[in-house]
Amino acid sequence: MIRLNGGGGRGDYINDFGSGEFVDVRAVRFDRVPAFVPDYPDPQPADGECVVKVHLAGICATDLHLTRGYMKFKGVLGHEMVGSVVSGQKEWLNKRVVCEINCVCRKCEMCLGGLATHCLRRTVMGIDGRDGCFADLVAVPAHNLHAVPDTLSDEDAVFVEPLAAAYQVLAQCQIDPRMKVSVVGTGRLGLLVVQALATTGCKLTAVGRNAAKLMMCEKKGVQGIHVDELVGGRDRDVVVECSGSPAGLGVALRLVRPRGTVVLKSTYALEGQAAAMPRVERSSAPPDLSQIVINEVNLLGSRCGPFPEAINALARQAVEVRSLISRTYPIERALEALSAAADPANIKVLLKINPR
Amino acid sequence: MIRLNGGGGRGDYINDFGSGEFVDVRAVRFDRVPAFVPDYPDPQPADGECVVKVHLAGICATDLHLTRGYMKFKGVLGHEMVGSVVSGQKEWLNKRVVCEINCVCRKCEMCLGGLATHCLRRTVMGIDGRDGCFADLVAVPAHNLHAVPDTLSDEDAVFVEPLAAAYQVLAQCQIDPRMKVSVVGTGRLGLLVVQALATTGCKLTAVGRNAAKLMMCEKKGVQGIHVDELVGGRDRDVVVECSGSPAGLGVALRLVRPRGTVVLKSTYALEGQAAAMPRVERSSAPPDLSQIVINEVNLLGSRCGPFPEAINALARQAVEVRSLISRTYPIERALEALSAAADPANIKVLLKINPR
Repeated sequence: MIRLNGGGGRGDYINDFGSGEFVDVRAVRFDRVPAFVPDYPDPQPADGECVVKVHLAGICATDLHLTRGYMKFKGVLGHEMVGSVVSGQKEWLNKRVVCEINCVCRKCEMCLGGLATHCLRRTVMGIDGRDGCFADLVAVPAHNLHAVPDTLSDEDAVFVEPLAAAYQVLAQCQIDPRMKVSVVGTGRLGLLVVQALATTGCKLTAVGRNAAKLMMCEKKGVQGIHVDELVGGRDRDVVVECSGSPAGLGVALRLVRPRGTVVLKSTYALEGQAAAMPRVERSSAPPDLSQIVINEVNLLGSRCGPFPEAINALARQAVEVRSLISRTYPIERALEALSAAADPANIKVLLKINPR
Repeated sequence: MIRLNGGGGRGDYINDFGSGEFVDVRAVRFDRVPAFVPDYPDPQPADGECVVKVHLAGICATDLHLTRGYMKFKGVLGHEMVGSVVSGQKEWLNKRVVCEINCVCRKCEMCLGGLATHCLRRTVMGIDGRDGCFADLVAVPAHNLHAVPDTLSDEDAVFVEPLAAAYQVLAQCQIDPRMKVSVVGTGRLGLLVVQALATTGCKLTAVGRNAAKLMMCEKKGVQGIHVDELVGGRDRDVVVECSGSPAGLGVALRLVRPRGTVVLKSTYALEGQAAAMPRVERSSAPPDLSQIVINEVNLLGSRCGPFPEAINALARQAVEVRSLISRTYPIERALEALSAAADPANIKVLLKINPR
């Protein structure tokens, strides 16, 4: 229960925290199973943290993996969001914000060495040791916040975190217009990576299974190829693997040229944790890692990325994200939303939590 | 059967091809099972190829994997050797030579682009589409040959091919004295990689299971750590995985720092081909590739390397290989030799085929 000032009342599904009354915090908690909780404990911001009222949150493949045991996570799910600051440092109050997910110590050798996203003592919002943003309120370090320009809608801004992850590929690999590049996987993340890579002018193709999503690539000027219709291969300078499935790495290793680079964005639960996985992931054989040795491939893990680049790309309309929104659910229907996010027919599924 | 000029007769196990008489070619053929063949067909050198009389050949982990179905290879095994040229280009005749294993077209885009070891039409001696050197005679392209300096014995020179593979790590990774580096696996290849890396002055440790091999590392001035006694981790700038087992990659991913590099030298047969594998390889779980993504590790496949560096390292005695020779068998006892090579108590097992 938390008390906040301002005007307005609770809507149909929505707290707006504006009535000055005490209201309960709604949250989507995971503890072996996901559950909607109408009265989750109030966030307890530490020194240097703000409390953000969440407007809109996005469901990511990682959330689905977490609900299958990945990272052995317990707590409030969610790490993609846009919201507004309701308590904490004065300079942030009432600002509309997006939030980096790695909460870091700023003191360890990783932080001091410029690799803060790899902080040795980090917690990660909604992923590792810290409650996430599928809730009315979430406590976050002030230095994780980025202001959202007025020109961006909440529906744009909620894509900043995954789009930053897409831009991380460009931070790690030099990609120029002469290069042949493929994206494997045309889901939530793949369609963002496709757009980020398209800005380089490289010779880009997208490889997937879903005709509608391949068509979305074509609409964005990028050739879409069904994975069963791949011919040749071994000629891409860079392949970005975002399929979310171990089989995707096998496809990537088939496409990449000798001494080329495969950027690995997918994380998967381990085999022993895979009981609840969709059939396609369970049945796929582990990729033949000998191909990495034989072709001297550079397999590059890639995780979180630069928020400023993502905000900038959205602001200058270099990337279009609204068409990726398949469904939006109120937070009370989060379990339905998680199921919808697991359905390959959908792309991005959002949770509407509070009005802007 | 082949006729060669010169003096001398057939020894106990050994053809010396010196008698001027017709002698049969002995070979170790693999066709679902390995077999010693006393009368293998003569090699048929193509244009630009020489015939090399093999003196001494080395058994490598790849040979053992081939006998378990890796690459679906059929033909004469063997790709590590020293010998002397008995027919072909005049400038090579009677020269003592070692031989690069990738036989390339010199015309495809890989060859023309400076990546000849990745030639799109390559055959690989004793590994892919071409008979190997576990035989009295082997046909090889003249441009694959390197002369062996007189100061090197055959027992040194037979290590040039695997030592070149070890030096490939230095060709792919900049390693300097400030860096923490570990080698995982202290077998045949690991002990060569340890020595090649030690020449850089980096902070080097070797991780293995076998006390005697760890002791060999210590004797060469490199700290040996038993894998069960590893503490900490996540602090190595570079880890070279040469264990030959999928579990080794798991160890490497545990040791490497975020944004560090794991050089993968091991190839393994796929799961479905693993029936004949030793217990340790069968039972080990597939490595958790999510660690590559979470820690943004750079996993770098590494295969064949530069022969001149390896010859030079042996000639200036920067690397010592004779102490790695555990057993030497005559070619007729090749099956025993293959069994001995699969025994972790042994390091390098050689086949003595013809006298120098």
